[in-house]
Amino acid sequence: MSKVTCLTRILVLNGPNLNLLGKREPETYGTLTLADIEAALQTLAESLDCTVDMAQSNHEGELIDWIHQALGMQDGILINPGAYTHTSVALRDAIAAVALPTVEVHLSNIHKRESFRHHSYIAPVAIGQISGFGVDSYLLGLRALITYLT
Amino acid sequence: MSKVTCLTRILVLNGPNLNLLGKREPETYGTLTLADIEAALQTLAESLDCTVDMAQSNHEGELIDWIHQALGMQDGILINPGAYTHTSVALRDAIAAVALPTVEVHLSNIHKRESFRHHSYIAPVAIGQISGFGVDSYLLGLRALITYLT
Amino acid sequence: MSKVTCLTRILVLNGPNLNLLGKREPETYGTLTLADIEAALQTLAESLDCTVDMAQSNHEGELIDWIHQALGMQDGILINPGAYTHTSVALRDAIAAVALPTVEVHLSNIHKRESFRHHSYIAPVAIGQISGFGVDSYLLGLRALITYLT
Amino acid sequence: MSKVTCLTRILVLNGPNLNLLGKREPETYGTLTLADIEAALQTLAESLDCTVDMAQSNHEGELIDWIHQALGMQDGILINPGAYTHTSVALRDAIAAVALPTVEVHLSNIHKRESFRHHSYIAPVAIGQISGFGVDSYLLGLRALITYLT
Amino acid sequence: MSKVTCLTRILVLNGPNLNLLGKREPETYGTLTLADIEAALQTLAESLDCTVDMAQSNHEGELIDWIHQALGMQDGILINPGAYTHTSVALRDAIAAVALPTVEVHLSNIHKRESFRHHSYIAPVAIGQISGFGVDSYLLGLRALITYLT
Amino acid sequence: MSKVTCLTRILVLNGPNLNLLGKREPETYGTLTLADIEAALQTLAESLDCTVDMAQSNHEGELIDWIHQALGMQDGILINPGAYTHTSVALRDAIAAVALPTVEVHLSNIHKRESFRHHSYIAPVAIGQISGFGVDSYLLGLRALITYLT
Amino acid sequence: MSKVTCLTRILVLNGPNLNLLGKREPETYGTLTLADIEAALQTLAESLDCTVDMAQSNHEGELIDWIHQALGMQDGILINPGAYTHTSVALRDAIAAVALPTVEVHLSNIHKRESFRHHSYIAPVAIGQISGFGVDSYLLGLRALITYLT
Amino acid sequence: MSKVTCLTRILVLNGPNLNLLGKREPETYGTLTLADIEAALQTLAESLDCTVDMAQSNHEGELIDWIHQALGMQDGILINPGAYTHTSVALRDAIAAVALPTVEVHLSNIHKRESFRHHSYIAPVAIGQISGFGVDSYLLGLRALITYLT
Amino acid sequence: MSKVTCLTRILVLNGPNLNLLGKREPETYGTLTLADIEAALQTLAESLDCTVDMAQSNHEGELIDWIHQALGMQDGILINPGAYTHTSVALRDAIAAVALPTVEVHLSNIHKRESFRHHSYIAPVAIGQISGFGVDSYLLGLRALITYLT
Amino acid sequence: MSKVTCLTRILVLNGPNLNLLGKREPETYGTLTLADIEAALQTLAESLDCTVDMAQSNHEGELIDWIHQALGMQDGILINPGAYTHTSVALRDAIAAVALPTVEVHLSNIHKRESFRHHSYIAPVAIGQISGFGVDSYLLGLRALITYLT
Amino acid sequence: MSKVTCLTRILVLNGPNLNLLGKREPETYGTLTLADIEAALQTLAESLDCTVDMAQSNHEGELIDWIHQALGMQDGILINPGAYTHTSVALRDAIAAVALPTVEVHLSNIHKRESFRHHSYIAPVAIGQISGFGVDSYLLGLRALITYLT
Amino acid sequence: MSKVTCLTRILVLNGPNLNLLGKREPETYGTLTLADIEAALQTLAESLDCTVDMAQSNHEGELIDWIHQALGMQDGILINPGAYTHTSVALRDAIAAVALPTVEVHLSNIHKRESFRHHSYIAPVAIGQISGFGVDSYLLGLRALITYLT
Repeated sequence: MSKVTCLTRILVLNGPNLNLLGKREPETYGTLTLADIEAALQTLAESLDCTVDMAQSNHEGELIDWIHQALGMQDGILINPGAYTHTSVALRDAIAAVALPTVEVHLSNIHKRESFRHHSYIAPVAIGQISGFGVDSYLLGLRALITYLT
Repeated sequence: MSKVTCLTRILVLNGPNLNLLGKREPETYGTLTLADIEAALQTLAESLDCTVDMAQSNHEGELIDWIHQALGMQDGILINPGAYTHTSVALRDAIAAVALPTVEVHLSNIHKRESFRHHSYIAPVAIGQISGFGVDSYLLGLRALITYLT
Repeated sequence: MSKVTCLTRILVLNGPNLNLLGKREPETYGTLTLADIEAALQTLAESLDCTVDMAQSNHEGELIDWIHQALGMQDGILINPGAYTHTSVALRDAIAAVALPTVEVHLSNIHKRESFRHHSYIAPVAIGQISGFGVDSYLLGLRALITYLT
Repeated sequence: MSKVTCLTRILVLNGPNLNLLGKREPETYGTLTLADIEAALQTLAESLDCTVDMAQSNHEGELIDWIHQALGMQDGILINPGAYTHTSVALRDAIAAVALPTVEVHLSNIHKRESFRHHSYIAPVAIGQISGFGVDSYLLGLRALITYLT
Repeated sequence: MSKVTCLTRILVLNGPNLNLLGKREPETYGTLTLADIEAALQTLAESLDCTVDMAQSNHEGELIDWIHQALGMQDGILINPGAYTHTSVALRDAIAAVALPTVEVHLSNIHKRESFRHHSYIAPVAIGQISGFGVDSYLLGLRALITYLT
Repeated sequence: MSKVTCLTRILVLNGPNLNLLGKREPETYGTLTLADIEAALQTLAESLDCTVDMAQSNHEGELIDWIHQALGMQDGILINPGAYTHTSVALRDAIAAVALPTVEVHLSNIHKRESFRHHSYIAPVAIGQISGFGVDSYLLGLRALITYLT
Repeated sequence: MSKVTCLTRILVLNGPNLNLLGKREPETYGTLTLADIEAALQTLAESLDCTVDMAQSNHEGELIDWIHQALGMQDGILINPGAYTHTSVALRDAIAAVALPTVEVHLSNIHKRESFRHHSYIAPVAIGQISGFGVDSYLLGLRALITYLT
Repeated sequence: MSKVTCLTRILVLNGPNLNLLGKREPETYGTLTLADIEAALQTLAESLDCTVDMAQSNHEGELIDWIHQALGMQDGILINPGAYTHTSVALRDAIAAVALPTVEVHLSNIHKRESFRHHSYIAPVAIGQISGFGVDSYLLGLRALITYLT
Repeated sequence: MSKVTCLTRILVLNGPNLNLLGKREPETYGTLTLADIEAALQTLAESLDCTVDMAQSNHEGELIDWIHQALGMQDGILINPGAYTHTSVALRDAIAAVALPTVEVHLSNIHKRESFRHHSYIAPVAIGQISGFGVDSYLLGLRALITYLT
Repeated sequence: MSKVTCLTRILVLNGPNLNLLGKREPETYGTLTLADIEAALQTLAESLDCTVDMAQSNHEGELIDWIHQALGMQDGILINPGAYTHTSVALRDAIAAVALPTVEVHLSNIHKRESFRHHSYIAPVAIGQISGFGVDSYLLGLRALITYLT
Repeated sequence: MSKVTCLTRILVLNGPNLNLLGKREPETYGTLTLADIEAALQTLAESLDCTVDMAQSNHEGELIDWIHQALGMQDGILINPGAYTHTSVALRDAIAAVALPTVEVHLSNIHKRESFRHHSYIAPVAIGQISGFGVDSYLLGLRALITYLT
Repeated sequence: MSKVTCLTRILVLNGPNLNLLGKREPETYGTLTLADIEAALQTLAESLDCTVDMAQSNHEGELIDWIHQALGMQDGILINPGAYTHTSVALRDAIAAVALPTVEVHLSNIHKRESFRHHSYIAPVAIGQISGFGVDSYLLGLRALITYLT
């Protein structure tokens, strides 16, 4: 027993406006809430022998703080940076600095939307990017991260 | 009586550095303070049968939080996004998400200034933009918003 | 008595295709005609102690001629330059040359439309720009101009 | 008899400098005059059961006026906008406003010439564009327009 | 008799995905198939005293091969290069090399679509371009080509 | 029994140079061959109740042909377009035309490589894009596609 | 005697807003009026054995009309196209079409002003361009034109 | 004595991720921590007769708040804006608004790194910029600022 | 004897339209045919102790196939990619993948032609580029390749 | 007498390759040599009561040295910067530093040539620019400079 | 004694127009001359145990020659490249070739001036850049260089 | 005898920093010196019946002077313009002016390096360009030039 102590620990971060998920613009983002996503991730996490800690903030600085705190506490990061994907060099630098394996996910297909959403400051410091599969983007991202870590 | 219950409720948001209004750079922004603007808005609000709640923050995340909290509590938003006009996709997404009618105002004529101030991420999700009339930009914006809502 | 002699005189200019207002593309521009706008402006003008002279032309040169003729005859200009907003350096130079306080208005929110409509040659020589409020853009513009002049 | 009353009516508009056609730069534009083109169009029009009214102006505003006047009087527009193809948003808006089916034609192949002639403001509001066939561009354009209208 | 021996011979080439014509995306491309277009061209060809050989390929190289083989066998080329319009310098070079009079046609108005479809590598080596008239683009193109050749 | 008849059928397409996978540049693409990927996909396919048909070609036209042939034969497409991701409008049009749900995958993180690899012509017509997870990109892509289809 | 019959005839054209010369913005354009310029040109013309006909219009179309009318009536054109320098392809085409030797002049140094004033559509079809010498630009231009013609 | 009362007071601000200094990416940023830098600055400050107050935040808004609070409390600002250098117009406006002499410093040579790090929104409102000397950038910056203030 | 067994083997690849060499556009490409070039290369190859296998295709995919097949069969590649120079990322990736020393040659000086021909996707993965010397480009390229290999 | 002592002194500078004038490329630059130009300038100088010192160098640094030496020795500069017009910020800074009135001249019409010749680093620090009149550009430039100085 | 033999030797290079320092444009560059700067550097050098050799040239080639000659004679380079900062790839290559530690300094804040002065070809091959502190930029640069070398 | 009198004479010019060849950065440029290159060229020249005069300068102006002096003295130019390749319009004009057949060579593959090294001002006025073969670039260039001249 005691397998618990060696579980892979994943921090799941959500950027600005994702707290409104499932409550607004369902035609773009679907009807599932962030709580639903967390539940789905927890279920999948069990089958993948990992733990999931999820958080959301509209504050760029708070997201950076959390990434820093993950050092030594988490084994990898699953992040949906929301709008900060396209504007935050600071978030990119935080991920590069802590050097934790990171997977970037997006609910919508950012390559189909306005051209300013095609570019990601985060992707070049992430393992990879998954975009366009709704809530499934998170689940696929968790699988990708666990596969990478093991 | 009871007219109060049907007053239109307007959230007035001010972005970074607007707390210094009237205290710094009067040649660009005039000598009126944010409190003066609020007073002028309150006076106009009475004549337009609406209430005005005004707030200011230098924090992008806090402005987003407030926009979220306006859902169900306010009928429209009057916003001077300050420098976030030109850099914040997150603020734009917040306004688009809550889908409250929003009017964007600027004290100075942003089209006369540095070229990086000519572009607004906010304008495409607002009803319209008013720029260049000093404090009067707010008063015109409130009129425009109330006219739109009624 | 004699208050008439000191009324502020405003020239209201309308650029190309605005003569079709209310007759075509109501989903974009609404159903009010230019005559309706003039009537609304006249009503507002009375309450603001100003006179309004309105004209429309599809000819860039004619608009420039009228701006020149306003010298000494008018105290300010309210202009909806229509498509010339985006292409006419000559119109800009005319406004700069006569140096009459000028407010630029647009019925639709030009920042929401094709990218070639986001740039205005006129805005940098105007006091300010009001865009997106339909006919109300004119009324707000008149208020802004009168406030500026007094 | 009375077939006349149901003839399709086509306005043929020619932009700046086309009045010089056949008189100048024959190596680029050929030796036929605008009158020759009109004659050729009239001949073709008869066989296509339509009438053709042709006009030319060097004035952007006059072309716009004529497009407005075509409302209710004409069934379609065949236009060679000349140099205004590349600079006139106002002409584009006029065509979009009257919403008459419009075909854009050019004598020379504009895609072979200076790069500033490759872009057309008119094409996106026209049914289609025909470029490069000399006078035949007009005749093909008339056929295209009549086919579209019937 | 013997008029047959002097018939003008036209190669009609169709680029990638045009084999799906009439089967997919009828809202964009209509319901006529490539066979229907060929039939219409054959009918018109008879009245214009020319022969039409039509082919389609999704392979850039095959289209180039066919253009080469047209040397001495055909008198002109009518081509709808499809997506290769915007990406194939090789196709352009093939047309320039064989120096057969070529007309470029498009079913849809490419100037109305995504900006990467506005540019044609083919147009500068063609006599002219016809875009936006559906199947009629082919018929007009054949007329234009025959007029040019005679 | 008979469950076989309702299996979801997935076409897996591989673009240029992917036949060399595992044989060249292992530092970039790993040591697994395309056959290994197919085997891994088949294993996963069984657990997901779907069939997988995999093909590879260095020919843009052949890839397009196969996409056309998938119409009515397959339920979805998993594609690694390789270098054609960045240059092929024709491939994009083929996917758009057949309108089969499509997932785009990449072995390497294209957002980390040369800037000309950041743009994908395919992504805007795909459900989503998965990039950077090596062979796992395919497995995640298959999961994403099956989830989407069911 | 009879020298008069062989005088060189020069058309001097002035574009938009130049009628205000000497009346507005003296810090940029000096205090001389267009009439003063004409007088100075007439004086110089005498010593150069040429005649000068000067005209001004704010209408692009009128300037084009006058250029056309100069055919056979004038030997050369001296033009200050004003703001149309930067926006009028039609004016450029008119000059190219009549093929009269043309010199372009500017009062102010356009290369010192806003970047949109650095480009001239007219210069490539003129003999040369003289910019920045105030009224002297006209006099130098006349000398240049007469030297070129003789 | 009482020399203390006339000491120059300098606010030293550090932007996002600088709290990790010396702990992460030593190959890029060296092994000294922010505390080491503060100690070095304090030592230098003594010899320069100034006081140093140092702070760090990952929050753009907090940095702006601190700049505002420096008004009347500090004589100058030494700032390493980190990633906000390249994205924050708000930070720039804060510095411009308080109008305290400001020196911008960077540990690494930003002109050697990714092109998006070459541009600084801060530099145009600072006295000057020092980049590339590791911890020495701060010490040089303090010297520069004190020299400027005295 | 047996020197034959250690001859250096060179694959000479020719891209689209080069099969027309000597037959079309002699003013640009000269009158020598591809067979003449092969003969000249064979003659030079003998003196350089190498063998030359030459092929030409208009098909991008076929060129890629041949590059793959060269693995283990050839010691180096001499390639004139023709128009694919400017458009084919796939060809570039093929050369990078097989990692055979490659020299890029062009008959004409591509830097003198249209600007879209100035950029080469191939050059960054080749040893070097030789452009502008007609058939001599091939002979110089063979020399360069053999020198590099020995 | 003694009028000599108050003669205006003009330095005439010629940039790279102008020493070849009249010897090479007569179709572009005419057949007059630099000595011929100097002679023509001397003749004109006499009538304008000024002296002319002319020099030519292919060395950017030497031209700068001469401009420095003109301080206190000359009253104005007439410069044909040749190719340095388009590339030399140092030459521009030299002219700005000595602050001697400077006129920029060009033999050919630079606005008709390659696009990299349309931009001048010199023009914004000169009084004005004269381009396209061959040797006459120098004579006109001298007149312009003398007029400016008197 | 003998301390002299181990002094660090620094070459101080000044680019074009810096010989005019203190004599022209004092509002931009201050009133100190290059000799004053040298004196200040010598004073500082003594306290830092280094020697300073200073030179200035307006000739790009001469600056390159001096950099070459520094090889083995100097331990580091302090350079104010003046206008060559923005245009000289040759100077950059010289610094990269000799591989002597180099610090780039500027008197004015180049990031506040015209946009063509924001880019430095030198900075990417220097240790760092110091810009905006007047003469103090040199002194700070010398300190930075000595710190780096020791 | 007397064959000497008809030897082809070639000027070999080397631009900035090439005097350091073989002494610095051997990983980029190899270990051969300019003297070694000259020796190799002399050897080859003998076999090609030509003479070679080689020179190097870091001065743009000196290179131009030498090109001028080659008129009538040399039959062709082999030039490695070094960094001036990318910045010198003056060098380009010199080559165009003397109209001597010129071949441009580079030691390294400039298309593999920084993007500002991809463009050559020289190539469009040269016969051709050879890049990437180290010292062999010179030898190939000499062969190309002699072949061209004979």
